[in-house]
Amino acid sequence: MSTSTSPLALPFPVVPAIPGVTPRVARARYKNWDRCDLTFVTFDEGTSVAGVLTTSKCPSPEVEWCRKALPLGKARALVVNAGNSNAFTGNRGRAAVEAIAARTAQHLGCDPSDVFVSSTGVIGVPLPIDKAEAGLDAAYAAEPCSWEQAAATIMTTDTFAKGAVTTAVVDGRTVTLAGIIKGSGMIAPDMATMLGYVFTDAAVDPVFLQRALNDANGTSFSCITVDGDTSTSDTVLAFATGKAGNAPLASDEDDGADAFRAALADLCRQLALLVVRDGEGAQKLIEITVEGAESDRSAHRIALSIANSPLVKTAIAGEDANWGRVVMAVGKAGEPAERDRLAIRFGTTQVAREGLAVEGYEEAPVAAHLKGQQVEIGVDLGLGEGRATVWTCDLTHGYISINADYRS
Amino acid sequence: MSTSTSPLALPFPVVPAIPGVTPRVARARYKNWDRCDLTFVTFDEGTSVAGVLTTSKCPSPEVEWCRKALPLGKARALVVNAGNSNAFTGNRGRAAVEAIAARTAQHLGCDPSDVFVSSTGVIGVPLPIDKAEAGLDAAYAAEPCSWEQAAATIMTTDTFAKGAVTTAVVDGRTVTLAGIIKGSGMIAPDMATMLGYVFTDAAVDPVFLQRALNDANGTSFSCITVDGDTSTSDTVLAFATGKAGNAPLASDEDDGADAFRAALADLCRQLALLVVRDGEGAQKLIEITVEGAESDRSAHRIALSIANSPLVKTAIAGEDANWGRVVMAVGKAGEPAERDRLAIRFGTTQVAREGLAVEGYEEAPVAAHLKGQQVEIGVDLGLGEGRATVWTCDLTHGYISINADYRS
Repeated sequence: MSTSTSPLALPFPVVPAIPGVTPRVARARYKNWDRCDLTFVTFDEGTSVAGVLTTSKCPSPEVEWCRKALPLGKARALVVNAGNSNAFTGNRGRAAVEAIAARTAQHLGCDPSDVFVSSTGVIGVPLPIDKAEAGLDAAYAAEPCSWEQAAATIMTTDTFAKGAVTTAVVDGRTVTLAGIIKGSGMIAPDMATMLGYVFTDAAVDPVFLQRALNDANGTSFSCITVDGDTSTSDTVLAFATGKAGNAPLASDEDDGADAFRAALADLCRQLALLVVRDGEGAQKLIEITVEGAESDRSAHRIALSIANSPLVKTAIAGEDANWGRVVMAVGKAGEPAERDRLAIRFGTTQVAREGLAVEGYEEAPVAAHLKGQQVEIGVDLGLGEGRATVWTCDLTHGYISINADYRS
Repeated sequence: MSTSTSPLALPFPVVPAIPGVTPRVARARYKNWDRCDLTFVTFDEGTSVAGVLTTSKCPSPEVEWCRKALPLGKARALVVNAGNSNAFTGNRGRAAVEAIAARTAQHLGCDPSDVFVSSTGVIGVPLPIDKAEAGLDAAYAAEPCSWEQAAATIMTTDTFAKGAVTTAVVDGRTVTLAGIIKGSGMIAPDMATMLGYVFTDAAVDPVFLQRALNDANGTSFSCITVDGDTSTSDTVLAFATGKAGNAPLASDEDDGADAFRAALADLCRQLALLVVRDGEGAQKLIEITVEGAESDRSAHRIALSIANSPLVKTAIAGEDANWGRVVMAVGKAGEPAERDRLAIRFGTTQVAREGLAVEGYEEAPVAAHLKGQQVEIGVDLGLGEGRATVWTCDLTHGYISINADYRS
């Protein structure tokens, strides 16, 4: 793969060290390449964890492992393998995850259930245990690395390293929340989607952290789609070390709970949008807002129907204000809609209203808007108060090139 | 559009005249082109009609018109406009359909509700009534045309004219069933999909015809998908003139009822497959069979999840036996599935069984199968007796080229 960087890429932000969190990387050489592909993040004792995982009925053994460990609420390490997803590999895949957790637990003197594992890459090839163990040993012996190096090491078809950072004031202390994420294809909502990790020095009870992460997921990772395909390995984990020294957040009434939740939601949205910006073949970032639906849920479904329509996505790639395809996607969503109340805008220009084209609407501002890298589509159903925003990218020749020749 | 003929195209079959049916074509010039774009088919008195129409919540006025006329069960004419779908055009679109029906009724001395109208093409531009009326007048005055000419006249982005023919013995007489169809993008199931017309000289009660068409639809048009997008105008109509002179079919107990139903189902499947063969950018016809599901319905949904997955479709385009993407698509379907019981084959070669790759399966026959124009994917869920087959095509650069530059 020699794909050039996405035109929508953003530079990696300045992410400070997070007290209690130590990232390292190593070369496990899961593929025939010379790059770091194993990320090893350790946490000080007392770190809480929460997570959202793929809804796939055929999840990877890593996802099953995390699902079992999450209710315990504590974490000492995160291991991420890139280049091999270890999914659909039967007992051998399960054995690989157990071996990684055992080896890590041995290094750290912790319980294997304190170790969280993710893998990403080709499906169906068992992760080689010898390479994983050698990689882990090398990572354990390595110097800590930067967040940018960690973000680069979890990449597969990604074209740029993705990270975000924010802060919140909790109990009188400024806490930091930082995240890294990977993903550019096989991205669809209704789930955690891709591999994303959030780290904070805030002290947060794991049950509260899980609730805050669920809510943040609902307005971020669940609102993006690249191709409507859902991975067997999608994972988002949040780790809170407590090193900031605040009184642990455990309820919405606690001082700073709102600020923390807002910061987490903001961080997750930043991370989610980075994935869309690196959507396979993406040339444009598309924001779709549906208003006037019967409910927020209905608006969300209609917005996703538009976002997943190949005809809408190719029209945007062609910079064509083909709002007829938007109508088509509204109509096929199976949600309440009335053709003759429908209004559609591109950018700030209304192109259709009450079920038909706005007479003599100005093409020039629409054309100019569509030439840009960020395209907004607005739909008003005129039925109720339901509202949702989702993000996707256009569907281009680049997507075909990347995916018609991936495995080989 | 100067797209070359699909490599999967089939020659137009020899279709005999159907007694009681007279096709004609004319140039209405709905677009700036010099081709016939108005198809005008008249039926002798006593012709029954049945139909299946799009499930879109934003249907075209043509679809609404047909939905209202179908319960009356009789037809004297079919008018098909190509180049303009007249969808999402408010009162002006409704007025155009009413004008077409009125003008036709005037020519034929029948009721406007005996006239069935379809339009296909760009959404959002009202069909020009003056062009439609002039086209109708010209068609009415024209000589009858061949079925191949009629099939060519209903085309839009189609690259070849599509027709099929079969016969059945009903009540001791051989009846003929012929069909023409158009469609190559915006094709998805759960509906009639595209514009398809079936003509027979059999005498069939409209209620029986409707039941037979519904059943045929369930194993044909509902089992194909090109891009998962659903048109606002999808229509399949069946017309039976009764000229064969058989005792009218009205119940399953009637002599020849089974033969007629089987012939109709066969014809509809032939027509549906022609649409997939002309899928935008299609290089390969893909047949996906899911067995061992909890129910036929569940099998159908899983098969469509595979058929609509951009990652599966691009892998086939790349002739890549990437069965991991098939697993992914099974997993995301939301239907009962157990990873460790899953078996997958390409062609006749089993590549995965009991949740993992078949050790040392032979790559050569799989590679040879994928190089062909017809690819078979088989999935056995190992859970029950549910079974379904669907058809789709691969997703190629051609699809992007066609759809990123359609409207202009």
